[in-house]
Amino acid sequence: MTAGQDDIDALIEMMAKLPGLGPRSARRAALHLIKKRGVLLVPLAEAMTRVGATARECLNCGNISTGDICDICESNKRANGQICVVEDVADLWAMERSGVFKGRYHVLGGTLSALDGMGPDELRIPQLKDRIGAEDVSEVILALGATIDGQTTAHYIADHLPGITVTTLAQGVPVGGELDYLDDGTITAALNARKAL
Amino acid sequence: MTAGQDDIDALIEMMAKLPGLGPRSARRAALHLIKKRGVLLVPLAEAMTRVGATARECLNCGNISTGDICDICESNKRANGQICVVEDVADLWAMERSGVFKGRYHVLGGTLSALDGMGPDELRIPQLKDRIGAEDVSEVILALGATIDGQTTAHYIADHLPGITVTTLAQGVPVGGELDYLDDGTITAALNARKAL
Repeated sequence: MTAGQDDIDALIEMMAKLPGLGPRSARRAALHLIKKRGVLLVPLAEAMTRVGATARECLNCGNISTGDICDICESNKRANGQICVVEDVADLWAMERSGVFKGRYHVLGGTLSALDGMGPDELRIPQLKDRIGAEDVSEVILALGATIDGQTTAHYIADHLPGITVTTLAQGVPVGGELDYLDDGTITAALNARKAL
Repeated sequence: MTAGQDDIDALIEMMAKLPGLGPRSARRAALHLIKKRGVLLVPLAEAMTRVGATARECLNCGNISTGDICDICESNKRANGQICVVEDVADLWAMERSGVFKGRYHVLGGTLSALDGMGPDELRIPQLKDRIGAEDVSEVILALGATIDGQTTAHYIADHLPGITVTTLAQGVPVGGELDYLDDGTITAALNARKAL
């Protein structure tokens, strides 16, 4: 009976480990959960248990899935010869939200980084090479971050995939963006890649 | 197998209902959970299940507890004749963190508010009156917010507890506060309540 507060404290401590929640907001979230026990806390615990029991990395592309092979890799409709290479599952989700890409993905799991000890073998780059032969791929689209590490990784991949079309996302002014708020690098890239109207 | 993403989507949707998390940060938090499946997702689900099964309101004071009566109400050490009245469990936790109050609490569950339909009976005020007789209370300390609703509630409680000492938290300059950044109301309150050095 007297150990009651311990469970609640343990819950708060674990909530505080979530990105975006600190100790203070974790307390608030935990309190909210306890108050909405029936409609939120119990269903959320069940959803977590379910995902915890089944979620794993797709053996083919690295996407998070509840089977050995994710829905996208399983779908024949997505086998259009294009593979979009992303750093992380979050980037894959962002691409899927846009709904514009109809092919399959390959999740690297990070970028090449000498400092962090991330080499090609840590990044599922060998698996990408294997897939290109096995899946009849015609184009590899590199959707990596416009950072130094992201661009280094993009160049490395392009160099190691001879005989295949490798493209990368365009750089330029974001839709809805105002020139006044853009950095010099973006303006330079947008000007260099200008198109005839 | 193909229903896999549904579970993950349901998890994200429920995470987004937590205070402090929106759809975007809920996705990030869910992804973090899935990546740290063993060390975070599974233990968090277990903690939630445990709290969900046991957490309830203390029948005496309204604190959240895992028994019918919370640890504070059960402890004889806390029966010093003082009851601190707070709006919410979060306020009780804040008082406990300061560690300075040694008595018991009474959680109102809100403030009087005609607009929100909160009357004395919704606020556990009758239970407070009952406790004053039953627990040999000598002082009721009102630790309510310095808002209009909070102060209205404080005055209502003071008026309805005849024959007992009712005190309220001091108002003034917060510790570490700079005058330049304080509002006029706080400066006025601090000046009116000035003390001899």
